[in-house]
Order: sequence, then C-alpha cells, then structure tokens
Amino acid sequence: MITTEDLTKQVLAGSPRALARVITWVENSDPRAAKCLEELHPHMGHALILGLTGSPGAGKSSLTDQITHHFRKRDKTVGIVAVDPSSPFTGGALLGDRIRMNRHAGDPGVFIRSMATRGFLGGLAQTTDNVVKAMDASGKDIVIVETVGVGQDEIDIMRIADTICLILAPGYGDIIQSMKAGVMEIADIYVINKSDHAGADQLYTEVNSRILQDTQIKKSPWTPPVVKTVATEKRGIDDLVEAIGSHQCQLKESGAILEKRRERIRQQTFQMIHFALFQLMEKELAQNGRLERLVDAIIERKENPYRAMREIVDEFIHTPAAR
Amino acid sequence: MITTEDLTKQVLAGSPRALARVITWVENSDPRAAKCLEELHPHMGHALILGLTGSPGAGKSSLTDQITHHFRKRDKTVGIVAVDPSSPFTGGALLGDRIRMNRHAGDPGVFIRSMATRGFLGGLAQTTDNVVKAMDASGKDIVIVETVGVGQDEIDIMRIADTICLILAPGYGDIIQSMKAGVMEIADIYVINKSDHAGADQLYTEVNSRILQDTQIKKSPWTPPVVKTVATEKRGIDDLVEAIGSHQCQLKESGAILEKRRERIRQQTFQMIHFALFQLMEKELAQNGRLERLVDAIIERKENPYRAMREIVDEFIHTPAAR
Repeated sequence: MITTEDLTKQVLAGSPRALARVITWVENSDPRAAKCLEELHPHMGHALILGLTGSPGAGKSSLTDQITHHFRKRDKTVGIVAVDPSSPFTGGALLGDRIRMNRHAGDPGVFIRSMATRGFLGGLAQTTDNVVKAMDASGKDIVIVETVGVGQDEIDIMRIADTICLILAPGYGDIIQSMKAGVMEIADIYVINKSDHAGADQLYTEVNSRILQDTQIKKSPWTPPVVKTVATEKRGIDDLVEAIGSHQCQLKESGAILEKRRERIRQQTFQMIHFALFQLMEKELAQNGRLERLVDAIIERKENPYRAMREIVDEFIHTPAAR
Repeated sequence: MITTEDLTKQVLAGSPRALARVITWVENSDPRAAKCLEELHPHMGHALILGLTGSPGAGKSSLTDQITHHFRKRDKTVGIVAVDPSSPFTGGALLGDRIRMNRHAGDPGVFIRSMATRGFLGGLAQTTDNVVKAMDASGKDIVIVETVGVGQDEIDIMRIADTICLILAPGYGDIIQSMKAGVMEIADIYVINKSDHAGADQLYTEVNSRILQDTQIKKSPWTPPVVKTVATEKRGIDDLVEAIGSHQCQLKESGAILEKRRERIRQQTFQMIHFALFQLMEKELAQNGRLERLVDAIIERKENPYRAMREIVDEFIHTPAAR
C-alpha cells in the first residue's frame, strides 16, 4: 500500500492520479487525508482562488469553461472544483453542466472535480476548502470554485476564494432574491451573463445602483465592477479576466489580502476543529447502537431528549475543572 | 426575573409574549432555552408541521398566507416560521415578503416568526426545529415552515415537516435546477403556483413525468400529487389543503409516520448534541484569545493547522481509552 509520504510526493510532482486519490480521501473523511494535507501544507498558498456563484441557470459552467480556456492559452494550469448539492437518494452530483467542460478533459493542465454534499451540514465548505488546498499544493496556478445555487452553503464555500464573482443573468431570479441570500454583499465582481438577452440592461442598471448604495454604506475601498458577458459566444471574457486582475492588485496594494487571509485561516481552523469533533462524536454515538437506544427511549417517552443531550455532552467533553 | 418554569407555564397557557420570549432565547442560544424546551417537551408532538419550499419568487409567502387563512376559517390556530437567509452584513432578514402576511398580524390565533441564519452552518436547521417545537408545545394546530431559496439548508429544514410542499412557478428556475438541489425528491406535494402564467402547463407536464419516473424507481406507496394554484387569486387552495390531508392520512394508515418520526428524532438528537458540543468548543477557543494566537502562529508559518487541530481535539475530548 502506498504511504501518505509517497502520495504527497507524487502530488507535488504533478501527478493527477495522486491528486485525485488525495481528494477522494478528503471527500470520504479518510484519516489519511489529514496526514496528506499536513504534509502538503508547506506547499499551499500560491494559487489564485476564484469563486463563481449565482442563480441556477445563469451560466456559471459556461463561464468557468471560458475562463479556463483563457488561462490555458496563457500557459497557466487550472483546477476546477464544481460543487453540486447532491440528491438525497442518488448521493451523487447531476452531471448535466459538467458535459460542457469536456473539451478540457484531455488537457493535463486542467484538473476538474465535481463534488456532492455528504449530508453533514457545513461539512461541504470544509471538504471543498481542503480539495481547493490540495489543488493549490499540487501547483495549479488558478483554482476555480463553482457553486450551484445560492444559499448559506454557497456563501460559506465562496469565503474560500480570493475573488468572488457573482453571475447574474436576465430572467434567472431577480436581484432582490440574490440580496436576500446575502450573496450580493460578498461579491467582488458582478457578471451579467447572457447580456444579449432581453432585460440585461435593466439588470445592469439595478446592479449598479445597488453597488452604489452598498459602497456608500460600507465605505469599501473597492467598488465592484459590473462586467457584461455572453459566455456561449466568448464575449466579455477578457473584460472579466481584467476585472479579476484589478481586484487582485487592489487586494495586494491595500493590504486587504492579509486581512482576508487572516479571517480565512481563523474560519478554516475553527471549522476544521469543529468537523473533527463532529466525526468523533458520530463514531462514539454509533458505538454499540447508543444513538438507536436513545432514540427508542425518546419515542417511548422514557427519555427527554434535552436532558439526554446535556448528559452526553457532559460525558463527552473535558470540563475545564477536570483539566 | 421570570423563572423558566413560570415562562413555560405561560407558553402552555397560550401567551404569545411568553412564546416570543422562549423563541428569542432559542435563537440566541441562551442557556435558558434548553431548560424551557426540556420542560415543554411533554407537550410537543400534536401540531401538523407543514413545510413550504421552492424557488425564490415562486409565491411561497402568498401561499402561506392563503393556507393560514383557510385554517383560521376552520378555527385552527397557526404558527408560521419564515426562514430567511440573513445578510452577512445586516445580520437580519429582509422584510419584503413578510409584509404580505400582515393581515394576520392582529389575529391571536396566528403566531408569525421570521428567522435569519446565525452564521453557524447547520445551526439554522437546529434552531428552526426548536422554534417549531416551541410553537407546537404552545398549542398551535398547524405550524408552517417556509424557507426562501433552495439548497442544503432548506432540505435540512424541510426534514422537520410532516408534509413537504415544493412550490414551483413558470419562469422561476426550471425543474432541472430543483432536481439538482435535491428538493424534488423530498417533496410530498408539488404545487404549480402562478398556474395562469405562460409555461404553467409545460411545467405541469414536466413535473408529472418526473414524478412518474421517481415513483417507479423508489416504489413509494405515495405518489405526490401536483396541485395548480394561483395564490394571489385564492385559486386552488382548497385542492392544496385536501392534498395535505390525503398525505397525512396515508402517513398514518401506512405507518410511515412512525418511521418518519423515528428518523426525525434520530437526526434531531444527533444535531442537538452536535450543536451543544460546537458551542462549548467555540467558547473554549475564544477563551484567553486561544484561537487568535493559533491563527497568528499559522500565518507566521510556525504552526501547521492540521497538526494543531489534532492536538486541540485530543485535548478537548475524552478518548475512549481515558474513560
């Protein structure tokens, strides 16, 4: 059996198979994943991490494809993490959108991974983060994280990115809905895709007036640009890549990138500990059918779940006094 | 200061002020919330819990309003929990949709609560669950949980419900997008709202053929009906309520309700323990700026986050060997 040291070396040497294997371990919460990530850690932190989110149907996959194409023409390597909420029944990601990415499938400079949720709340952001980091350590110049849908999960995933692009398109959920989801406020760049469709100009005006309001309230040094694209016709891609570059410059010049990185490390460390705790607890409760017995007792009304919870937590945790 | 015993008594006596207070404690993770819930527990389990979810703009709030109106005319009391993802900046829910519910504001038989996410991943489903249970214990005949958006959070929240209605409307995200989000598969009833709009018939046909496929695969004893409504014109509401009644009957007659309840208690107990652990850990890491010091060390590359995580978890948790 391959050791984690050997696998780490292969990842660092650029083996896509080794990278795929580490990512599978990460997704399956295999204990070897933590070991690999620990070994890969010194090699992380070089990739530009790009987040693409927006309403379903707005054209994220087509834009990811075009951006990838743009960077590949400039000899940059690209990692793509496409996050699909899974079906509770099939447990897997639907592949529809992925098909559009196929033209990069044979390119060794592009590594694509589709991810599905694994049931655990919050685990998805944690897992995605580690997958992005593995790609980063493997030497990818750009890692694109693309999320389907707009929700708290997506917001948490997007926090991984250095530059967040919110993709909007006329007819795919209005701006009020994006505001509700809180995504409007975390975006660094707004993209109006399908900008040749009816309603694109109105959307453009709405987004701009919203940004104006926002920057006045937040007094942010960065005013998010609004870029018009038609991904399927390759229009506006250069403008979008330029906007990404400007945002990167501003982050570095203002020192905001340090602050951003600090906040990210805080979040990630916290979530990592949280996730590890969760896994331990899951294992503990599964042992000897303990959770099942507790559920039985609650159903038979012999046990009050709130009381039982207190008891289990007390037993599970070192109290400060006990240390 | 009021004791939790007194407050619990007031909730059971039907005081909306007392109920609002308990809910605020639940939302703020006040330690007194757990105490109240423990005391309220024997009075839970009587309400019909109805979940309404669907694409943004599909008309969930208008339908909630109409369903509420329907049950009020029949002297049933109604609790409404409207879950809005919060803005990361304002921390609060946007109120637009809530305005439509105003006609019930003066009715003592209706208790409405808007909830925002509180940042913690998965905490929202847990909090919503406890808010629903408090309403249930307070004697509401029906508790409606309405979620904005379609994502993993919403799916987790919907699992609280006895009967889940997926609200679709022509032009608001197509059926493929709902399938991706996994919501299609958890719905017990499909509602085509705005059924007088163009595209409604096509949507109706698509949903029906999807259901046909699904029931063939799953061999479920329940075939989800598709109900056409125009909420703003009160059309189709009786049909929808009838479908809800049929689903309830089927759940009871088939015994599926016991299985459903068991699964729900398992999930809830697990999440409750998880959430309590999380809060303890959060407190622990905040103590003496421990997390901040760790973040500093990681930024200065003096510490490997993966190693540090292992150390903290080991310290925090009783290992089986230590017990």
